[in-house]
Amino acid sequence: MFGKVSIIGVGLIGGSLARVIKSSAAADEIVGFGRTLEHLQQAVDLGVIDRAATDLGEAVRNADLVILALPVGAIKEVLYKIAGDLGERTVITDVGSTKLQVIREARESLKQLFPQFVPGHPIAGTERSGVEASFAGLFENNYTILTPVEETRNTALSRVKNLWQLANAQVVEMDALVHDEVFAGCSHVPHVLAYALVDALVRNDRHKDVFKYAAGGFRDFTRIASSDPVLWRDICLTNAKPISELLRQYQSDLGTLIDAIEAGNGRVLLEIFQRAKGARDRYTELNQES
Amino acid sequence: MFGKVSIIGVGLIGGSLARVIKSSAAADEIVGFGRTLEHLQQAVDLGVIDRAATDLGEAVRNADLVILALPVGAIKEVLYKIAGDLGERTVITDVGSTKLQVIREARESLKQLFPQFVPGHPIAGTERSGVEASFAGLFENNYTILTPVEETRNTALSRVKNLWQLANAQVVEMDALVHDEVFAGCSHVPHVLAYALVDALVRNDRHKDVFKYAAGGFRDFTRIASSDPVLWRDICLTNAKPISELLRQYQSDLGTLIDAIEAGNGRVLLEIFQRAKGARDRYTELNQES
Repeated sequence: MFGKVSIIGVGLIGGSLARVIKSSAAADEIVGFGRTLEHLQQAVDLGVIDRAATDLGEAVRNADLVILALPVGAIKEVLYKIAGDLGERTVITDVGSTKLQVIREARESLKQLFPQFVPGHPIAGTERSGVEASFAGLFENNYTILTPVEETRNTALSRVKNLWQLANAQVVEMDALVHDEVFAGCSHVPHVLAYALVDALVRNDRHKDVFKYAAGGFRDFTRIASSDPVLWRDICLTNAKPISELLRQYQSDLGTLIDAIEAGNGRVLLEIFQRAKGARDRYTELNQES
Repeated sequence: MFGKVSIIGVGLIGGSLARVIKSSAAADEIVGFGRTLEHLQQAVDLGVIDRAATDLGEAVRNADLVILALPVGAIKEVLYKIAGDLGERTVITDVGSTKLQVIREARESLKQLFPQFVPGHPIAGTERSGVEASFAGLFENNYTILTPVEETRNTALSRVKNLWQLANAQVVEMDALVHDEVFAGCSHVPHVLAYALVDALVRNDRHKDVFKYAAGGFRDFTRIASSDPVLWRDICLTNAKPISELLRQYQSDLGTLIDAIEAGNGRVLLEIFQRAKGARDRYTELNQES
């Protein structure tokens, strides 16, 4: 299916994709590049990649497929660095959590090669990270969103689609703007809210007792506040508009709730809580909570 | 240990406490009272209580111990109704999630019997409810907070403490105001925030996709929005001050985050996210996440 495949960033996502390609013998050679040689060596030792490239140019040269398995904040720099070493028919894809800005960066850096770029976002991940946590089943039955634009070449899109189908992902095409708005709601804003809550509580006089007596509900609610701060800073910076708009709406909704609590207005509280529970329960049924 | 024990409200908490008393043979008779005869009959059939009382007065008359296993919003009315039927030595306790208001209501309704009232709050619960979900191990290794006041008789306090020790709960005494402030932080405010988020998203144009593509993080974050709306309305109404103060603080913190996102100020975002992750991880280590 592919000759040389380059994976830039061999962590949880990049490593798992490499394993998928390996186990389906879909490439002649898988070359990895990453921040430290130590991690790359580990990836080689684990059999995840065939070899570690010593520099970025060498990593992508003559590749059929370049996968940027990097956090959104790191994509731009790599795109500029590799642009000169890409072949005319090299397909480039990414796994970043926000798409409009990555597309903008790819258009500016890749120039005439931009039609070969297929923006992607696998909805997969665990609390763990790094190549040692990678496994070929990571994407199985999870959505992978592709957000091609007008210029995107169909042949490039097909090849990336095939790749994700090898991973048994459920591939969905979506407009990049829609993607960024949808994920602001179901992922980005919840992360910001969880970070904000834990941070507010830490600054509370009683925070030791607050954490001591926290039960399962609190643990679940704040679990995402244990996510990688750099990744989430970058997501906020690259999807600022949808996130901040939704946060402003939320902030104003909180005002309604605070007013109702202070005024002892149980009717308003009940209405909001019931509507939320109704939606949560409906959605849980549809998605079959695991 | 006890002669007659009356359990008012034989649901998850009341039923589980009844099972504890039963399995340790700590009472001569366990009498239950509840909203519907059907549920009470179920409790009798399950062997959770010995018999169902037909009215509230009869339920508590000659009881050694009366357990109000009711949501906070339902306690006041029951206190007024039973006050005339309680004996001088009857010990009364509750399991309500907020304490200052319940104490106020108990003082006003029980009058000279108030020193026999021991305010309690077991930190236990599952998403399920009702007597059919009850089990004797529910309180095991969980905290049960008791918030006695100056007038509370030591003998009454000891008896209630013994009861929770039978349940293998970790009994902690706490000032009622401290209790209400601590639980505003680790329980009440997170619930309000989760309800508010789901409600905000439902009103979003893209809400179908938002729910469709939501992954595990979102499910965890919003799980508590599936809690009982009436219970949480009542908790908000009976602990209004600590909850609304913390929500106002949170609302203002969100403003800082929104400003940083709109200004592209990654330094502020990273600082907040890192502080939150640090606290969450530290606390998780201490509490041994399950």
